[in-house]
Amino acid sequence: MSDPICEPAHPSAPSPAQQLAQDCAASMWARDHAAQALGMRLHAVGPGRAHLGMAVRPDMVNGHRICHGGLIFTLADTAFAYACNSGNANTVASACQIDFLSPARLGDELHAEAQERALSGRSGVYDVTVRLSGGATVALFRGKSHRIQGTVIEEPPQAA
Amino acid sequence: MSDPICEPAHPSAPSPAQQLAQDCAASMWARDHAAQALGMRLHAVGPGRAHLGMAVRPDMVNGHRICHGGLIFTLADTAFAYACNSGNANTVASACQIDFLSPARLGDELHAEAQERALSGRSGVYDVTVRLSGGATVALFRGKSHRIQGTVIEEPPQAA
Amino acid sequence: MSDPICEPAHPSAPSPAQQLAQDCAASMWARDHAAQALGMRLHAVGPGRAHLGMAVRPDMVNGHRICHGGLIFTLADTAFAYACNSGNANTVASACQIDFLSPARLGDELHAEAQERALSGRSGVYDVTVRLSGGATVALFRGKSHRIQGTVIEEPPQAA
Amino acid sequence: MSDPICEPAHPSAPSPAQQLAQDCAASMWARDHAAQALGMRLHAVGPGRAHLGMAVRPDMVNGHRICHGGLIFTLADTAFAYACNSGNANTVASACQIDFLSPARLGDELHAEAQERALSGRSGVYDVTVRLSGGATVALFRGKSHRIQGTVIEEPPQAA
Repeated sequence: MSDPICEPAHPSAPSPAQQLAQDCAASMWARDHAAQALGMRLHAVGPGRAHLGMAVRPDMVNGHRICHGGLIFTLADTAFAYACNSGNANTVASACQIDFLSPARLGDELHAEAQERALSGRSGVYDVTVRLSGGATVALFRGKSHRIQGTVIEEPPQAA
Repeated sequence: MSDPICEPAHPSAPSPAQQLAQDCAASMWARDHAAQALGMRLHAVGPGRAHLGMAVRPDMVNGHRICHGGLIFTLADTAFAYACNSGNANTVASACQIDFLSPARLGDELHAEAQERALSGRSGVYDVTVRLSGGATVALFRGKSHRIQGTVIEEPPQAA
Repeated sequence: MSDPICEPAHPSAPSPAQQLAQDCAASMWARDHAAQALGMRLHAVGPGRAHLGMAVRPDMVNGHRICHGGLIFTLADTAFAYACNSGNANTVASACQIDFLSPARLGDELHAEAQERALSGRSGVYDVTVRLSGGATVALFRGKSHRIQGTVIEEPPQAA
Repeated sequence: MSDPICEPAHPSAPSPAQQLAQDCAASMWARDHAAQALGMRLHAVGPGRAHLGMAVRPDMVNGHRICHGGLIFTLADTAFAYACNSGNANTVASACQIDFLSPARLGDELHAEAQERALSGRSGVYDVTVRLSGGATVALFRGKSHRIQGTVIEEPPQAA
């Protein structure tokens, strides 16, 4: 119940790449105070992908009970971060772009699904779709990643 | 002290456009629960522009004490919102783009200054620069606005 | 041979939406002097999608025989235009974003495939992938469309 | 008359940085077949900036005599290239974004002015404004640059 990775994508025998993605995500999550403070949940991760959720709380809306666009972006950006760090190479966002399609309202449950579109050298491109539980698309996000020095987890699991 | 508009840009005799910008900002601020929850401050507004601040708190960082990029975006997006609604026409963000240049750290004070670049028909383009107090540029943001129906404040002040 | 729509996607019995997309494309193509001057070919169109090709010519490269990024954008933007006008509502690009992933060289044949991602009210979002014939991805493009007044073809075919 | 750099920004005694920018531009221009084929003119260059022009020709428009957006982008992208290579470090575009504000028509003279906004490590951000001769803004462009290996000109002039 306290595990942020709620639904393992491969319950029986995760591949090494899948296991690495889960280990990286668990390490990132433990120190990701911002994602935790916003009540995000890490539904699933895998190589080059991540699925996060967030409920729209009273402190995320304006007077018309519409979720602040910046917090929709923050959810998408977080899914992007988990997807682009899933291979255990420290990676940061260099640029992001978002199209807002329809509003989210107080109490809505948002889902952000990130998927790698391209990876070449130290740069990658990731697409994130933010949807309501009912399926309506709230926003389309595209992020450009840049790999920097270092790894996400200190001891790669294959060294064990 | 409780006034979010800390430094009036024109202390003596604000022009009608300046007064309208301040009245719109005050009305938006009162119902902007998200900006308040993030501890933002509205330093100044004017026709087509806004200057907001935000301190990087412990609940905004990761384990390396680096501010979540989504919250830098949220500050920029909020400055954009106050700038593009400064003429009392209800206006929303349709798309935004951000380039992250250098990190912000726990305790840093961020400043976001938004400025209208173009306004034609119902669409506008606004540039926001996010800087540290010391002057270093943290991010460059560009937002596309779309005017919808309605006004920000019900009674325009000139009707009084 | 002179027909720009080289490969009908549905050879036997096109649906009304497919027929409309082809009729709109044929009308646009006839007056699209820029696409013709650049030697583009319209491989296929359909509702919300288009596939165009362009060979990289000597007048499209620099001294290192690398295709000018602007012309890769122009191909993607043209595929976007045919996709977003495929429903016979006059539609223009309001904003576009492109990530350049790998270069194209003199003599390469480029393929741009555009696909509608969202359409709501008068706004749409379209993704275009530009690839070499061999499959390598050259660029990822995202365009925001805005519907204006008027139709692409004067007499909708269903009126005949 | 044959010099593409029509108006030297500093007619009497160019600084070393200004001279380097002009030397880089002259070298790039000589091999820039695409810019030449589109009839572009290099009005001025300097450290981190460039000003190019292009007339909208019959082979750049559609049936309504409106310039293809891709060619407006190509002009802006070219100005970006001259600005970001002005320091003699080989630099390419990694991503670009454009907002189209108003159309350009057959016979219009377009001006693209590029200016460096940020430069840190191997990455830079450049803004380009595309205007008509009369002053109306046609498009706002933002490009992200990435420095690669090598120099623009083989022998830096200070070595002479």
